[in-house]
Amino acid sequence: MPNLTATEYSLITNVMSLCCAAMLAGALFFFYSRSQVAHKYRPALLVSALVPSIACYHYFRIHDSFIHAYTLTNGIYIASGMPFNDAYRYADWLLTVPLLVIELVAVLALQPEVSRKLILKLSSAAALMILLGYPGEISQVTTTRWIFWGLSMVPWSIIMVTLFTEFTQAYSRQSDEVKKLVGNARGLLLITWAFYPIAYLAPMVGLSGDVAQCGLQVGYTIADIVAKVGLGIYIYMIAMAKSEADGFAGDAQVAKASLA
Amino acid sequence: MPNLTATEYSLITNVMSLCCAAMLAGALFFFYSRSQVAHKYRPALLVSALVPSIACYHYFRIHDSFIHAYTLTNGIYIASGMPFNDAYRYADWLLTVPLLVIELVAVLALQPEVSRKLILKLSSAAALMILLGYPGEISQVTTTRWIFWGLSMVPWSIIMVTLFTEFTQAYSRQSDEVKKLVGNARGLLLITWAFYPIAYLAPMVGLSGDVAQCGLQVGYTIADIVAKVGLGIYIYMIAMAKSEADGFAGDAQVAKASLA
Repeated sequence: MPNLTATEYSLITNVMSLCCAAMLAGALFFFYSRSQVAHKYRPALLVSALVPSIACYHYFRIHDSFIHAYTLTNGIYIASGMPFNDAYRYADWLLTVPLLVIELVAVLALQPEVSRKLILKLSSAAALMILLGYPGEISQVTTTRWIFWGLSMVPWSIIMVTLFTEFTQAYSRQSDEVKKLVGNARGLLLITWAFYPIAYLAPMVGLSGDVAQCGLQVGYTIADIVAKVGLGIYIYMIAMAKSEADGFAGDAQVAKASLA
Repeated sequence: MPNLTATEYSLITNVMSLCCAAMLAGALFFFYSRSQVAHKYRPALLVSALVPSIACYHYFRIHDSFIHAYTLTNGIYIASGMPFNDAYRYADWLLTVPLLVIELVAVLALQPEVSRKLILKLSSAAALMILLGYPGEISQVTTTRWIFWGLSMVPWSIIMVTLFTEFTQAYSRQSDEVKKLVGNARGLLLITWAFYPIAYLAPMVGLSGDVAQCGLQVGYTIADIVAKVGLGIYIYMIAMAKSEADGFAGDAQVAKASLA
């Protein structure tokens, strides 16, 4: 752990704390928004709420672990000797990354067999991607890191190719508005998910020290907020657009319509 | 950090704790009030609930940070050497201030394109206002503080001008009762939001020491309660007035209406 200036330490811990708050707000928003959308889109919003709930928990742990890894000495933050547990990120991703692809497919309410096939393929590739990344992350040997980075990039590429082929076909019959929103959601996923394998390379290309540590921690945290809460907001907008197209105006209205 | 008397220290920490409780109560009230208003006003109440939820989290952190920044010695509270992290306020505002303008527009349930345009303009100006304020806040140089204060006042002014022009037009077709409530909500926002740029000036005009510290911490906390829970109460009253005008008397009543 490199020494950090007070500004760097503050920036890292404040962004981690902001992330706890953003994940909390995201989770609450998605949980309570379920009643705003038609019945069949609610499981997708529920999954969208689970993701920031899990992340909120992990960011409390990450923030705590980071604070205990440093001690303030003469205005400089130096390593306390307690290790910073970066594995919380992997535990988080192992649960949340498969859920992110599930929510993206689930909100489309496709034919069950199409949906099941896509979910199985994308979520198992997502879990494999995280599992294969971890042995490299904890290794100090550059070759080992490169091997696991390469292995992890295989499921990463499978996910991206699937999203731009099979998945595109699967949502081709949606309305123009929905197609645009799904395309944007997929773009957000592509951009945010590109950050992780690039950040993984940092220590392998000689990026270390306080500035790299700062960039990495802040970068991962912002990428997590955008990937999780940002994608959830797209899921919400897709569910709202599809509900409106289905003529949904609240549960009470549905009950009224059936009685009329 | 100036030394504080026991009275000053108690006042600050007690107001911060009161704020945690007020935010919690506000959040719960807005979450559970959603079913009291018609379907289309519920997202506005949901956003009104997220704001004090986020603030409640941050006031726990602020309270904690303040307590650790002081130590009691011979009946006087002196700086412990641990920094008080004022940045929690900025992290809070970065999330909540855009949400405050969103709830104010959302509750009117305007035409989607009018709503979208106003929300985009007001919420991005709000985020920019907070981001531009921060570099000045953490600077010890008076000139730097003045520059960022001035920069931050640009989006502040854009928000105020928009609220008194474009926004006024957007709600001109509402009923007299709603117009009055929206006007009051806007007034509350103008008054509470005026406190922040004035408080920001305190160290620049030579206000420091224990009394200034006390005034600033208590002032920010009270302004936050009024701006967040107070505005939420107006949003609730507007949603109730509009629901009543729409003939809404509960979800069960909507369903029952078709049986009559």
